[in-house]
Amino acid sequence: MQNNDSKKAVVLLSGGMDSVTVLALAKSQGYSVYALSFEYGQRHSSELAAAKRNAKYFKAQEHRIITLDMGALGGSALTDHSIDVPTEASDDIPVTYVPARNTVFLSYALAWAEVLQANDIFIGVNAVDYSGYPDCRPEFIQAFESMANLATKTAVEGNKLKIHTPLIDLTKAEIINLGLDNGVNYAETISCYQANTKGGACGECDACRLRKQGFVDAGVKDITRYT
Amino acid sequence: MQNNDSKKAVVLLSGGMDSVTVLALAKSQGYSVYALSFEYGQRHSSELAAAKRNAKYFKAQEHRIITLDMGALGGSALTDHSIDVPTEASDDIPVTYVPARNTVFLSYALAWAEVLQANDIFIGVNAVDYSGYPDCRPEFIQAFESMANLATKTAVEGNKLKIHTPLIDLTKAEIINLGLDNGVNYAETISCYQANTKGGACGECDACRLRKQGFVDAGVKDITRYT
Repeated sequence: MQNNDSKKAVVLLSGGMDSVTVLALAKSQGYSVYALSFEYGQRHSSELAAAKRNAKYFKAQEHRIITLDMGALGGSALTDHSIDVPTEASDDIPVTYVPARNTVFLSYALAWAEVLQANDIFIGVNAVDYSGYPDCRPEFIQAFESMANLATKTAVEGNKLKIHTPLIDLTKAEIINLGLDNGVNYAETISCYQANTKGGACGECDACRLRKQGFVDAGVKDITRYT
Repeated sequence: MQNNDSKKAVVLLSGGMDSVTVLALAKSQGYSVYALSFEYGQRHSSELAAAKRNAKYFKAQEHRIITLDMGALGGSALTDHSIDVPTEASDDIPVTYVPARNTVFLSYALAWAEVLQANDIFIGVNAVDYSGYPDCRPEFIQAFESMANLATKTAVEGNKLKIHTPLIDLTKAEIINLGLDNGVNYAETISCYQANTKGGACGECDACRLRKQGFVDAGVKDITRYT
């Protein structure tokens, strides 16, 4: 365990398996964690319930849920209910893509970090299984960090801001094993794009298929609740 | 006039003198303009009324007002009513600074640009009179543009996104003359941090003082309505 006692970190927490693993890691590394979630008209609002449970379980200092008016801009199956969620794998960028989502999420994390005078932001992006999202790639994260270090009062005053992406090079199987080592209960995480109100996963969407395969590859029992 | 007919541009529009000038310029350059404003708990909501009037006057294709849950993060006199708005000039970064504000605003502009398949974003930042805001500097804008070109589906598909900052090197006096040449009625713009509900400006805050001096330096009658 690193000695980061009293160091504050903002952790982006969707309630999915990746972000909960990151929360557990930040906590294991001794950070005082400030969990940040978003309500943005996503279909899978049971994700937010999972975020709340995990923020509490991992003793986040605070958990803020920001309401985003993202749906007003349209353009994604996750916020536009007139577009079907795809169940087929594809090499193209999926229609579940929310425009500039991680840019917006990280911008809020940056704003909160500045208010908290925190120099550390954690995000569970993953380049291996990134499923076609351009804002999950290392080069995007590096560019965001460079921009962030020019954007804020904190940066002007010389406090370097760091965006931590501990999962970026890991497979889903490696993420699962890392999370298990750090106390994550994956039954309490929701990855499904269209989970029902009780948190039951569809088992068919992109996110479910990646997750299922992760448990198979990790050689670990999949305790996800399916509908 | 440049020939940008049918080219779409997202224009960040607060309703203040700078953003309205930028709106007029984008329109003069032949862009089809999509105006984007934010409601974020700012004291001067009469700014939004000015934004609406100007979006209509300059025939914006659409005008979207996004509600931001920014106040939930605290840290600014503009959103936290327990902090007084300063009336004295200062070399420090003012407490009216909203954390990561332009980062958040530009992130939404980027999201909408992607949905619209627009490659142009206009923002009225100004480095000369920038009043201590780090996210009004050219190096910040350049870093944001670099990040944006890695963040989106549009960028991945090879459409370069450009952030236009036509006011960045201009004095307030130059901005006023430019706006007058492009049809701006400054009586219909609100710059004051604490304008009253009828749009009357206080005449004393940072924004009012910079604006007043701009009219003096431009040798133009100040038609701002003061309380």
